[in-house]
Amino acid sequence: MGRVTARRPVLRISPKGVVRRPDALAVEEPLELRVNGRALAVTMRTPGHDVELAHGFLLTEGVIGGAPDVRTARYCDGTDDEGRNTYNVLDVALAEDVPPPDVGVERNFYTTSSCGVCGKAALDAVKLKTRFSPAADESRITPEVLTGLPDSLRAAQRVFEATGGLHAAGLATMDGELLVVREDVGRHNAVDKVLGWALLAGRVPLGGHVLMVSGRASFELVQKAAMAGLPMLAAVSAPSSLAVELAAEQGITLIGFLRGESMNVYTGAERIVLPE
Amino acid sequence: MGRVTARRPVLRISPKGVVRRPDALAVEEPLELRVNGRALAVTMRTPGHDVELAHGFLLTEGVIGGAPDVRTARYCDGTDDEGRNTYNVLDVALAEDVPPPDVGVERNFYTTSSCGVCGKAALDAVKLKTRFSPAADESRITPEVLTGLPDSLRAAQRVFEATGGLHAAGLATMDGELLVVREDVGRHNAVDKVLGWALLAGRVPLGGHVLMVSGRASFELVQKAAMAGLPMLAAVSAPSSLAVELAAEQGITLIGFLRGESMNVYTGAERIVLPE
Repeated sequence: MGRVTARRPVLRISPKGVVRRPDALAVEEPLELRVNGRALAVTMRTPGHDVELAHGFLLTEGVIGGAPDVRTARYCDGTDDEGRNTYNVLDVALAEDVPPPDVGVERNFYTTSSCGVCGKAALDAVKLKTRFSPAADESRITPEVLTGLPDSLRAAQRVFEATGGLHAAGLATMDGELLVVREDVGRHNAVDKVLGWALLAGRVPLGGHVLMVSGRASFELVQKAAMAGLPMLAAVSAPSSLAVELAAEQGITLIGFLRGESMNVYTGAERIVLPE
Repeated sequence: MGRVTARRPVLRISPKGVVRRPDALAVEEPLELRVNGRALAVTMRTPGHDVELAHGFLLTEGVIGGAPDVRTARYCDGTDDEGRNTYNVLDVALAEDVPPPDVGVERNFYTTSSCGVCGKAALDAVKLKTRFSPAADESRITPEVLTGLPDSLRAAQRVFEATGGLHAAGLATMDGELLVVREDVGRHNAVDKVLGWALLAGRVPLGGHVLMVSGRASFELVQKAAMAGLPMLAAVSAPSSLAVELAAEQGITLIGFLRGESMNVYTGAERIVLPE
């Protein structure tokens, strides 16, 4: 690893004047994910925890449902002009009875609906792919535990402190124990790394857990929560319309604008222990 | 249009108590982009300015270089269960002499390098695709104009005001005239909409302009700036390592942490008129 931050000279202009000084940057590099030797996706990510990233990506795409579905995951092929391994190509060999994924741009949208590509088709595609239903999960959480999560996440964000340039995702229990935090230049990658960690730890489906993210809650992030069986997703910023629709349909508690002592609960409020 | 925001009830929990109230959300829906009838990409976007989005996407992917390269761009096929057009499938017919794009996950990374997928391969791919070089652009800007841009951008962000949930991108001249602002749930979409607007207005290549974005500066955003011939990209937040490398290689001025009266200039500082 050791490639999570990079140093670079910067010209700082401020009312105090103009100074040249070194600055720390969050590293971004492409990762190609192969399945059984065939290219499936290229994502721009922060290096590190790539095996978790691959597991989380394949879990949330519906390809795998548990750690035994993967036979091996290893870096391959990627050597640069000097013959050094770039550690930017990861090949996942699936267990024999696991069908490899479809490739192509339509794979998430055309499987279930006659309506072309639309919000409902996207919701239906998730419904079809989900292995674990969070809807029946009866775990509950207090507002005090929730309002403590952003500080816990930030405290664990070591690279953000240095660079100001990373998204973070964390997984906590409903009594507020933060189990894992991952950072990445891509918010979906940070979530995939967390969910891949959970899968490799044998914790999927993630009943009784809450996923906390540093930014906004998009459709894609709610989809990832659904695919991991998570009953709750909390975000520091706003959710999108389709994120809320998907959370409602999947029985997921969706919380946005979790800042200070306040929050907005968009769906699944029955899992919040409200004050008298 | 009219689908840029959606209303939804929300449970607001704060020290003042618990209230149920309506909330405005940024709309997110899939858009399938087809070229000559063939699916090229699906992106989750905020509806509106889809034709600009398609033009900007095709410009920054290196498929087109000017408005005459597109014969027609029209919504097609996408009807929902009740037979209504979803306006979520856009088909672009290219002019006869314009080669259609490659499809597939490798298209941005394998064209130029033997090193597998790596940062250098990504830089080389951009170098190969760029039609316009910003390197020779001699336009200059003052720190005062730059520090005014975030406020101008925010003032023009109508949907963000309502939802708190959108990225913004704006295009300005070097003397600070803001020409266009676009908002989207996806930061790359906001940029594509701005660049598509510029292309349709006959302004590409965009010498003498600065692109301002509300969030961070990733490799992908610098790539889009390069493909449009932009000499300057300014971001409110941090750039990534690969964004800085690409800006240096392409001769683009890259500014980050543009807040209040301060900024970090990562590359191309010769375009900033420094105080004595």
